[in-house]
Amino acid sequence: MTRKNTEQLHLGAFIVAGPGRPGGWRHPQSEDGWLTPDYYRRIAQTLEQGCFDLAFFPDILAVPNRFGGSHESQLRYGALGSLRLEPTQVLATMAAATNHLGLAATKSTSYYEPFDIARGFATLDHLSGGRAAWNIVTSFQDAEARNFSREQHIPREKRYDRADEFLEVTHKLWDSWADDALVADRAEPLFADPDKVNPILHKGEWFTVDGPLNVPRPPQGYPVLIQAGASDRGRDFAARWADVVFVTHYSLESAVAFAREMKARAAAHGRDPRHLKILPGITPLVGETQAIVEEKRKLLSGLIDPVAGLTTLSYHLDVDLSVYPLDEPLPHLKVPGVTGHYDEMREASDKAGLTLAEAGRMYANRYEGDFIGTPDVIADKMQEWFEAGACDGFMVMAAWQPGAFEEFVRLVVPELQRRKLFRTEYEGKTLRDHLGLPRPERGAWEGKSARLEAAE
Amino acid sequence: MTRKNTEQLHLGAFIVAGPGRPGGWRHPQSEDGWLTPDYYRRIAQTLEQGCFDLAFFPDILAVPNRFGGSHESQLRYGALGSLRLEPTQVLATMAAATNHLGLAATKSTSYYEPFDIARGFATLDHLSGGRAAWNIVTSFQDAEARNFSREQHIPREKRYDRADEFLEVTHKLWDSWADDALVADRAEPLFADPDKVNPILHKGEWFTVDGPLNVPRPPQGYPVLIQAGASDRGRDFAARWADVVFVTHYSLESAVAFAREMKARAAAHGRDPRHLKILPGITPLVGETQAIVEEKRKLLSGLIDPVAGLTTLSYHLDVDLSVYPLDEPLPHLKVPGVTGHYDEMREASDKAGLTLAEAGRMYANRYEGDFIGTPDVIADKMQEWFEAGACDGFMVMAAWQPGAFEEFVRLVVPELQRRKLFRTEYEGKTLRDHLGLPRPERGAWEGKSARLEAAE
Ligand SMILES: Cc1cc2nc3c(=O)[nH]c(=O)nc-3n(C[C@H](O)[C@H](O)[C@H](O)COP(=O)(O)O)c2cc1C
Ligand SMILES: Cc1cc2nc3c(=O)[nH]c(=O)nc-3n(C[C@H](O)[C@H](O)[C@H](O)COP(=O)(O)O)c2cc1C
Repeated sequence: MTRKNTEQLHLGAFIVAGPGRPGGWRHPQSEDGWLTPDYYRRIAQTLEQGCFDLAFFPDILAVPNRFGGSHESQLRYGALGSLRLEPTQVLATMAAATNHLGLAATKSTSYYEPFDIARGFATLDHLSGGRAAWNIVTSFQDAEARNFSREQHIPREKRYDRADEFLEVTHKLWDSWADDALVADRAEPLFADPDKVNPILHKGEWFTVDGPLNVPRPPQGYPVLIQAGASDRGRDFAARWADVVFVTHYSLESAVAFAREMKARAAAHGRDPRHLKILPGITPLVGETQAIVEEKRKLLSGLIDPVAGLTTLSYHLDVDLSVYPLDEPLPHLKVPGVTGHYDEMREASDKAGLTLAEAGRMYANRYEGDFIGTPDVIADKMQEWFEAGACDGFMVMAAWQPGAFEEFVRLVVPELQRRKLFRTEYEGKTLRDHLGLPRPERGAWEGKSARLEAAE
Repeated sequence: MTRKNTEQLHLGAFIVAGPGRPGGWRHPQSEDGWLTPDYYRRIAQTLEQGCFDLAFFPDILAVPNRFGGSHESQLRYGALGSLRLEPTQVLATMAAATNHLGLAATKSTSYYEPFDIARGFATLDHLSGGRAAWNIVTSFQDAEARNFSREQHIPREKRYDRADEFLEVTHKLWDSWADDALVADRAEPLFADPDKVNPILHKGEWFTVDGPLNVPRPPQGYPVLIQAGASDRGRDFAARWADVVFVTHYSLESAVAFAREMKARAAAHGRDPRHLKILPGITPLVGETQAIVEEKRKLLSGLIDPVAGLTTLSYHLDVDLSVYPLDEPLPHLKVPGVTGHYDEMREASDKAGLTLAEAGRMYANRYEGDFIGTPDVIADKMQEWFEAGACDGFMVMAAWQPGAFEEFVRLVVPELQRRKLFRTEYEGKTLRDHLGLPRPERGAWEGKSARLEAAE
């Protein structure tokens, strides 16, 4: 596939409402403000200076204890699941400090109720003037189930049935107010037109919801929907519902194959494939000179204990890696897991002759990947991926917070802008504007649900 | 009871994340910014200038349809349940715009999960530097149940069982990190001390929650707990768990009786009764001269359709009032309802010779009550209630938003300050500081649950 660089790329920032990527909190230029609004406000302003499309917060509803059956490694090493503030409040803080930046939070369809989620994102979309996005996850840790009064997680084959119905309900609720229902005519008086606010009377397998929502239709119609499912059903779900797919890859080849597959899936569902944006995660490590980059890499590498990475990988794979010897190659595992790329990772690791300990260290910060170097080297790589059709942009992860975002904005963004690969100012107002996505009309969701299709 | 005015009074502001009290949105000085952060930011700053203890957001999880079985009257008249943003996001916005103001949101124990609620308020307490409060409600509308996949609400006698266990779990989660668990020692490395973060392994009748929380212990230990239950069990619940009781009254006599009862109940549970703060709601109407007050009252009265009040009263009472004739006295009803004062209201209404329509209009804004007049008249009334032992302060409701808060701060607060009844500046930093409440140690909640007591 040759792809002309007619469009520009899109940039998201993957931010943790906590200590960030394992080891990153130990960096001399990292900051301890995880519990303060200033910390997030400042990141938001940095990203907006850099014209980023959106800030993205992952989430998890437990401190994982997959590694050795204990929370110890997560807490000691400040791993990804150790401390996490509730993300929509953090985004409300960021919304008040910015004017354009998109604002994405992760919420699970397995542990919340659709009325609550529809209302939360409608609220965020209003408070931000049309900048909200929802990263839809089905969750994958039994530890989360055990914080929500369930013995175990919903069986894998059922999770996406629930998610499909969950999205049917949230979309009906977002549509329950017509765009012009809120009148606020003081003289009449007519606050909202009762004929334009309708109950939804949803009755399904998982949910019974009367509606209407108590929040008017979101400025964007629906918030931008993000998804990152690895399984076949997860990909199908994304191709049906998602505006943005977040993914991680170990090579350009697998990235291109994935992007082709997803665009084809979207087209098969009757969608314009350009309206499904693919954003792989990268963890750039940038420096003014190659020598500085090398020294920075050494510094970071020394801050990471292998277990900090392995405890994260354990929870991403949902496998206890503490039972395998640290000084041997990665074990052969059949895992569905979060990454969907374990085999690829293991093969790459074997080829490089890495032990489990070394692979763990590598997994912790991923800065040993491809996006390392001076600004032009990183921009070259990004351009290569973009022009090869591997993606529509990137989700930038920070090896340490907030400094790595600042460096990216100061060093890499200008290089992308010089190449006309990235905007120099925002043109629209909403996140849909930034992403080049049309605003969905009322009812636009119909026909998306696999559950409804199967029932027909 | 003679009570010396040694303490000062406390002020909360009852704010609706929507059009406010019925009819208020029609006021020429009201503003339409319900969906924008500026609207809330400005109210927060006004209240902080006025040294208010806290901003308080009620909540409801449905557009009520109790009046005539339809949403029409709620929507048309912009009544209390017509439009409501999710309150914790609004508070996060306010937190970022203020330094001292306490921030209270209503969340129901009937429709959420304790992990989610504990995490949300821990997040708000951190992001605000110790200013979060939770108004605990058990909910009382079947319309809410029908938005949360339940045919009807949990039976009345079971709601507080669930609430008791809900609070056991949230307190265990808030205690799951010791106050000094977060170390962030980069050299060691030791992010959090695993010995000081403990699973809770709660197994009860309603909830099974392993924990620990993924947010450190809140700065205030626990967020300030507010409650407004009307029933006997509701009062008992408040006397056990609450720091603040929010209530409405129709007379000084009933207010004094209620306050005495609640303080006695708290003492019977082994608590210092001064640590249970009673804040009745009032809707002041203030003007520079009595003549201005009269004209303002006329203006407001003309903005309210009787049905705007009756649709609100219908949902507060959980009774369909549309079946009763508008031009006759209030019907005799046996209702548990939200107000707990229906009989008192009906008697007062009969004595004044009011029809249902007139009582509805009165209920809509309550500005026909006692707290009307020039600043000294209102301050007199407040002082009288305070010194009679009817309360520890007030929850100020605005006949229209945001103007009525501004007038109260400009006209009434200085008068209260002149009388040394109210602070002229904040002394402490946290909401517990403002309220004169000690910070609870880990484990301080033990012995509070009626459910556990009954099981012994
Ligand atoms: C890049 C990426 C990021 C993800 N972020 C989250 C997250 O923040 N929270 C979460 O619960 N799951 C997250 N997931 C997990 C997915 O939502 C999904 O549960 C997982 O990939 C398993 O996919 P499957 O359910 O389709 O098999 C992420 C997955 C990927 C690939
Ligand atoms: C002044 C006051 C304010 C209240 N605010 C709310 C509210 O915002 N949301 C809500 O669901 N219930 C609210 N309630 C209802 C109470 O929490 C409670 O459900 C109701 O008083 C019934 O009491 P009971 O359950 O003890 O019988 C309020 C009650 C009073 C008296």
